[in-house]
Amino acid sequence: MNASEFRRRGKEMVDYMADYLEGIEGRQVFPDVCPGYLRSLIPTTAPQEPETFEAIIEDVEKIIMPGAASPACTELETVMMDWLGKMLQLPEAFLAGEAGEGGGVIQGTASEATLVALLAARTKVTRHLQAASPELTQAAIMEKLVAYASDQAHSSVEKAGLIGGVRLKAIPSDGKFAMRASALQEALERDKAAGLIPFFVVATLGTTSCCSFDNLLEVGPICHEEGLWLHVDAAYAGSAFICPEFRHLLNGVEFADSFNFNPHKWLLVNFDCSAMWVKKRTDLTGAFRLDPVYLRHSHQDSGLITDYRHWQLPLGRRFRSLKMWFVFRMYGVKGLQAYIRKHVQLAHAFEALVRQDARFEICAEVTLGLVCFRLKGSNKLNEALLESINSAKKIHLVPCSLRDRFVLRFAICSRTVELAHVQLAWEHIREMAAAVLRAQGEEKAEIKN
Amino acid sequence: MNASEFRRRGKEMVDYMADYLEGIEGRQVFPDVCPGYLRSLIPTTAPQEPETFEAIIEDVEKIIMPGAASPACTELETVMMDWLGKMLQLPEAFLAGEAGEGGGVIQGTASEATLVALLAARTKVTRHLQAASPELTQAAIMEKLVAYASDQAHSSVEKAGLIGGVRLKAIPSDGKFAMRASALQEALERDKAAGLIPFFVVATLGTTSCCSFDNLLEVGPICHEEGLWLHVDAAYAGSAFICPEFRHLLNGVEFADSFNFNPHKWLLVNFDCSAMWVKKRTDLTGAFRLDPVYLRHSHQDSGLITDYRHWQLPLGRRFRSLKMWFVFRMYGVKGLQAYIRKHVQLAHAFEALVRQDARFEICAEVTLGLVCFRLKGSNKLNEALLESINSAKKIHLVPCSLRDRFVLRFAICSRTVELAHVQLAWEHIREMAAAVLRAQGEEKAEIKN
Repeated sequence: MNASEFRRRGKEMVDYMADYLEGIEGRQVFPDVCPGYLRSLIPTTAPQEPETFEAIIEDVEKIIMPGAASPACTELETVMMDWLGKMLQLPEAFLAGEAGEGGGVIQGTASEATLVALLAARTKVTRHLQAASPELTQAAIMEKLVAYASDQAHSSVEKAGLIGGVRLKAIPSDGKFAMRASALQEALERDKAAGLIPFFVVATLGTTSCCSFDNLLEVGPICHEEGLWLHVDAAYAGSAFICPEFRHLLNGVEFADSFNFNPHKWLLVNFDCSAMWVKKRTDLTGAFRLDPVYLRHSHQDSGLITDYRHWQLPLGRRFRSLKMWFVFRMYGVKGLQAYIRKHVQLAHAFEALVRQDARFEICAEVTLGLVCFRLKGSNKLNEALLESINSAKKIHLVPCSLRDRFVLRFAICSRTVELAHVQLAWEHIREMAAAVLRAQGEEKAEIKN
Repeated sequence: MNASEFRRRGKEMVDYMADYLEGIEGRQVFPDVCPGYLRSLIPTTAPQEPETFEAIIEDVEKIIMPGAASPACTELETVMMDWLGKMLQLPEAFLAGEAGEGGGVIQGTASEATLVALLAARTKVTRHLQAASPELTQAAIMEKLVAYASDQAHSSVEKAGLIGGVRLKAIPSDGKFAMRASALQEALERDKAAGLIPFFVVATLGTTSCCSFDNLLEVGPICHEEGLWLHVDAAYAGSAFICPEFRHLLNGVEFADSFNFNPHKWLLVNFDCSAMWVKKRTDLTGAFRLDPVYLRHSHQDSGLITDYRHWQLPLGRRFRSLKMWFVFRMYGVKGLQAYIRKHVQLAHAFEALVRQDARFEICAEVTLGLVCFRLKGSNKLNEALLESINSAKKIHLVPCSLRDRFVLRFAICSRTVELAHVQLAWEHIREMAAAVLRAQGEEKAEIKN
């Protein structure tokens, strides 16, 4: 949608809201629809081609408004998470469908998804061990529980461990910054021999630092054999899996118990919208279920409906699936794929520019929209380069540390980015680099003199 | 703002956004402002009288846009939480000010605030005990930790205990559904004698069931003497404390370590916006602090800025303080006070109507906007009444259970509610009650025959 259509549609929406407020006394306080009403009114998959804004607004009036905030809010979320799961070709077990045991939920952030998965896993292993040995206290078990993630995993995994009160061990990643079978297996054996209880593994697809991918096809079978909960965090990279040519990066997800990525990062849905799926939703609801009278409702034991409050940390919820519905329909799957592909192509274009300049090096394989690069030379030199780039405020780069090397990260992430922007950015970086190298040369010359 | 002004202002905002998008390439990618720039540009307290929409939008352009998303998002939040804290006459220690040790943060929901407080308290007591006895493991300590809340506390407190892996004990409330000193003291003595470690107390001001108030002036000093973290949850009632005549309900908050209420419940700020304050912000940041390279910034050790990511569960944040800024300025403190007072008056008006009808009884003291009532008679009768009211869909009531009595709750909570609505609702309830009583009479007569 360009700015001029945005003006027109935005103003129509303002009128829609004002009309709603002016006519609110004529509306019923509680909807007439029955639980499950929505699924049959909506296609089972996202459209391939873009639809018009009018078509979507018509459906809002016809499908959403009769279901008010509830149950429409819950039911659209379940169906949108199925749409998105199918776009990713997630295994059937993760979908809610009509009678599935799995399903998806919108969390606020990947941090919360990781924490929810860890807590569900903690509850599951605790109950399992207590069933076999009823004399074991929760604390006695928690003392021995160990969670694992690659040394490249996001800090939110460590935070989840802190909050959950369990120890987290970092598995050394390989030369491509990936967690591999051997390193994980070694840690598991060592910990089991020491009397500890491994219970939870986070595999990252697309790490924050350099967009590396843990080897799911190696790690998954180990988790399966050892009975460990496998959570797959693809916060950034997950959006790319809607393209068939990137879907192989998700292979092995069939071994996972939970999977998460952020459509708010790279799928044009506004913050916040973190998509999480589980294979067995009773694992989540079992960990959090509490039912005071003021939250009871007539359908709660029917099995017909989903109580998302048992899937998450907060009680209250927003109607975030509307954002997904609008975006998926306005772009169509093809439009979203084209968007991802364009970003990846631009990243490769930037990579090619860097490789043409012998003063620079590429520091990690470029798979999606992130390019890790640096000047050949010291960390100090690269810190100076970053400082000069970010001080100029024409572009903004966020660095990372890869095996103690200070690395610059060029991330393609704007909705409106074009090749010309990438070229301009590269010219700018080269200018800044030249100045930094010149200054370094002068400094060296001074020392020599 | 009425619907016609909403139409005009809403459309102006749509144009503002479209202009922003169209002109985005002319903007700098990183702001020029220095940390702390915002506080001096904004008054130190909320205005008493309403301001115009134009004045606020002018300030958005002048004060917010130059600070972009960051640091404006963080700094406006700190100042708004100070404004709100002053509106409530919170003790100085809870305010951030220029150099305070406390401060406020916007959480998503009261559930998250309770959990964050519990986790901070858990970390604090664990470190304290480990400092004295370094051989103690975290698990050995957690096994003995006990949190307390009234038997009327919200289910989110129990959920926080589940997530935090500590036991939570319910303190029997008194005849007015309040937690009192004697019952708390008894539980503490019993648990300490059993070798357990009390560490955390949640006092509720305005319970969900019947809006009862724990006795903070009794509970506070006990927590203080025993070195327990006191968290005060005033999720619903907190908004009322901006009125001097209700402020006494908050007396005793000076003993608390953390305090929380939801402006999204009753202060005209849209969901979500849960306001939480702590006296020592290092208690929060100490529990959650993790600093990977990609989240580092040049000011992080300066003490000048607030990293809210260490105050909460998620990493990402939205710019929710804008909602507060707009609402506080458009209503002014006096407008917000008038809004609260009107709701309380309407609740008393409903209470008076109920008291005039001898078939009904009031079930708990009416302090703010909630009236708990029921037909004199069995739970079954009242369940039938609720069922008939909610099936008619003219009004909607959520029930509760008070000492095993099924109770109906009439909550004044709409922005546009007037006395006429309350009167209509009462007439409707009387009609439904008459039908239910008639049916019961007929049933009894049938049994007799």
